[in-house]
Amino acid sequence: MSSFRGVLLDIDGVLHVSMQPVAGAAETLQWLERLGYRTCFVTNTTTSSRATLVRNLQAIGLPLAEERVVTAPVATAAYIRQHYPGKRCWLLTKGDTARDFVGIALVESGADIVVIGGAEELLTYEAMNHAFRMLMDGAVLLATHTNLYWRTSEGLQLDSGPYVHALELATGQRATVLGKPNRTFFEQALLTIGVQPHEAVMVGDDIENDIGGAQQAGLRSVLVCTGKHRADSPLLERIHPDAILPSIVDLPGWLEEQA
Amino acid sequence: MSSFRGVLLDIDGVLHVSMQPVAGAAETLQWLERLGYRTCFVTNTTTSSRATLVRNLQAIGLPLAEERVVTAPVATAAYIRQHYPGKRCWLLTKGDTARDFVGIALVESGADIVVIGGAEELLTYEAMNHAFRMLMDGAVLLATHTNLYWRTSEGLQLDSGPYVHALELATGQRATVLGKPNRTFFEQALLTIGVQPHEAVMVGDDIENDIGGAQQAGLRSVLVCTGKHRADSPLLERIHPDAILPSIVDLPGWLEEQA
Repeated sequence: MSSFRGVLLDIDGVLHVSMQPVAGAAETLQWLERLGYRTCFVTNTTTSSRATLVRNLQAIGLPLAEERVVTAPVATAAYIRQHYPGKRCWLLTKGDTARDFVGIALVESGADIVVIGGAEELLTYEAMNHAFRMLMDGAVLLATHTNLYWRTSEGLQLDSGPYVHALELATGQRATVLGKPNRTFFEQALLTIGVQPHEAVMVGDDIENDIGGAQQAGLRSVLVCTGKHRADSPLLERIHPDAILPSIVDLPGWLEEQA
Repeated sequence: MSSFRGVLLDIDGVLHVSMQPVAGAAETLQWLERLGYRTCFVTNTTTSSRATLVRNLQAIGLPLAEERVVTAPVATAAYIRQHYPGKRCWLLTKGDTARDFVGIALVESGADIVVIGGAEELLTYEAMNHAFRMLMDGAVLLATHTNLYWRTSEGLQLDSGPYVHALELATGQRATVLGKPNRTFFEQALLTIGVQPHEAVMVGDDIENDIGGAQQAGLRSVLVCTGKHRADSPLLERIHPDAILPSIVDLPGWLEEQA
């Protein structure tokens, strides 16, 4: 076994691409399990609850244990329970993400907390203006992440990050961002598996959110080139992963080299 | 006559409030005319074309000459004709504002120039994403103004400024802003009436856009308290108009004092 005890893994772009499993990903997860690595899956996805995400991944042959998956909405809900117990929360999130906020009072108006966590059809002018008015009435602004955009088969799509920034500008308030690359997010994942930052490596496809975020939190990091960013990304002039691997299947070999 | 030859006047909040004329506004305009002041009306409004705006103002007893009205869309169109002759333009503007862009090639997609000039029902996710993709394909971003929000009888409403900022963040591009408080806007208005900045006074109700903008362009400035900002605004700690008057009807008295 290598000098690492824990492995954090991003999901989309690392284990699957558009719900097509990366070849050998499931076998790599079994290998990590067999060798005693503690794994935790960390994702900024805001399209569904953790339970639904895990079920969908199981359906494509990626059996992840739900208690070892930390999503941006799960981290956001944990933050609210810790810092704003009993407060009323208005969610702008997709799918069944509200399931991750169990125990938190969810309201349609008059909220103490506004959570921006989705994009596309949710980001109507009406929803933005509703959020804006609650913020001007004293609500605090939380964001599951501040991703700017993502790539789809039809082209680039605006993500919620620019809209969070729009609300920040209009209200003069800074949002608290809970997903990657936030340090707290990585700490929450490490706590889940009882591993210290210096004992862990983060494996991701996003240079800023995965690699940069992990390094800020004191972890080492590995970029895989099956997803968002490749080995020729200009972002690598600024952020330097400990390794750049073609795919998750190259991780066992790299971990063995670190022994 | 005072040391001023030209008077620039904002319209909404100065001459009328929600289309109710300010008491004595029409008489003040007649007084300015009679004493030989050259007047120009400068507004960031993006809800209608200049022709429609003038007709609506005439209907409430404010007879403004169309050629002496400079709106943010009119200034934007002038900028495009000067800097981007022959280029294709996509407009996100309200009402019949497109009439102000006569002679400019207006397209639904594949634009060289994206103009953000309206709010509310126009600021859908689909429109924003469409603009975003054209900007990522190389179009330049123009904004008629970057107002953050305005007050309505139902409460605050998000204006297009935060959305312009969202597109700037997502694309890494800085928008060129053509309306107040942009210096070019005041210069265009002064050119219309053949008056130098030091010979002119700007009368407005918006401390940043009217007063701050005019001062940056070298004009003197008068705040009237019938609209957006009052004499107790914290913005006055930072921006100092030459005078604060209760209303436009107090302008003749103030101008006579400056003689």
